[in-house]
Amino acid sequence: DHFIVCGYGRVGRNAAYEFQRTATPFLVIDRNEQRVAKATNAGMLAMAADATQDDSLREAGVFRAKGLIAALASDADNLFIILSAKALNPQLTVVTRASEEEAGEKLRRAGADTVLTPFSMAGRQLADVLLRPHVVEFIDFARSNMGTGVVMEQVRVSSQAEFTGKTLGELTELRRSGVIILAIRKTSGDTTFNPDPNLEIAAGDFLIVMGERANLQRLERLITA
Amino acid sequence: DHFIVCGYGRVGRNAAYEFQRTATPFLVIDRNEQRVAKATNAGMLAMAADATQDDSLREAGVFRAKGLIAALASDADNLFIILSAKALNPQLTVVTRASEEEAGEKLRRAGADTVLTPFSMAGRQLADVLLRPHVVEFIDFARSNMGTGVVMEQVRVSSQAEFTGKTLGELTELRRSGVIILAIRKTSGDTTFNPDPNLEIAAGDFLIVMGERANLQRLERLITA
Ligand SMILES: [Ca+2]
Ligand SMILES: [Ca+2]
Repeated sequence: DHFIVCGYGRVGRNAAYEFQRTATPFLVIDRNEQRVAKATNAGMLAMAADATQDDSLREAGVFRAKGLIAALASDADNLFIILSAKALNPQLTVVTRASEEEAGEKLRRAGADTVLTPFSMAGRQLADVLLRPHVVEFIDFARSNMGTGVVMEQVRVSSQAEFTGKTLGELTELRRSGVIILAIRKTSGDTTFNPDPNLEIAAGDFLIVMGERANLQRLERLITA
Repeated sequence: DHFIVCGYGRVGRNAAYEFQRTATPFLVIDRNEQRVAKATNAGMLAMAADATQDDSLREAGVFRAKGLIAALASDADNLFIILSAKALNPQLTVVTRASEEEAGEKLRRAGADTVLTPFSMAGRQLADVLLRPHVVEFIDFARSNMGTGVVMEQVRVSSQAEFTGKTLGELTELRRSGVIILAIRKTSGDTTFNPDPNLEIAAGDFLIVMGERANLQRLERLITA
């Protein structure tokens, strides 16, 4: 029930910080002893091992892990990790980064669930910063979980929840509580933006909501068991 | 009134695509003739020149430009461009990318208005994909301007607008039109999430809104001159 971060370079390190910040259990694997020492000194669980070896993945608990980040420096190494990890545990969610779009295609075919291309992302966002500075500022603000800021969250409706089977409109209390329901994602995978208040909430639905952390936690208590 | 993209590598290319897609005037500068040919073949305005030279920036119209993206491969070259461009036109908005957080600090001190660190961004987002997959999916969906999808936009209230001086609540028509007002950014720079309906709209305010493109355009016609 933990996450595995393969590679403690620039990408892996920042993923690890994010897990640490959100108190999510995770384990770092890196073949470089100095990097492992850095992770350990930062208070993380880390293991000196070659993540492209099946034995290392087994030792890292790949069978009971929830997800894995392949963040080695080369596309080839990451592809190798993805094939190995998916063979050992087909249920595992595996995400990685690619140097180029074409490499990204190969990594997806190898079984990666999500592939990010950092330079493409950065290019698009630099243009976006110039074209829509306040939107970017707002998204950054909304994405960060720090302090008491506004955050975007996904909240899953449980079958035991008091609000299951009622309509979004019946969640009127939410209006006053400062939570915005941006979208609803039905179990079919269909996502509806700004959903109709008459829409009925079913178990398994995800509400994509935005609001201050404390208000979101109140909502979570209402719709999750 | 155009944007200048320095460097047509992985970062610059994706920034240029974004400008092209949104029909924004821009010019690409790259010292490599083959890259310039690629940009030209893609229908872009491009110039073979060394962006670290003042003459190149002058020729690219740096005096009348709105913004510049420094996207060369090295932090040192980008720092040089930023110092040169800001000296030639202090009003210019200059954005860039850094290989590491420490280099980012130097680029900011040199005058960069925004500095993105692609590997840090990718690392954080890979963790985010595992922790909050539907939020990430929704943000990606919301950020993309393609097709008829839902987008996030900033809309500036003009002094001539019919709604200037009225309250957000008086924009009741918007509710029905499927636009969500996420936040308001006052001219003071203060941004308020989920603003109170009694808040008065003033000229110069930015509304951060979300909705389908057609609905947002209708809103823009209402509150911009
Ligand atoms: Ca790494
Ligand atoms: Ca580039």
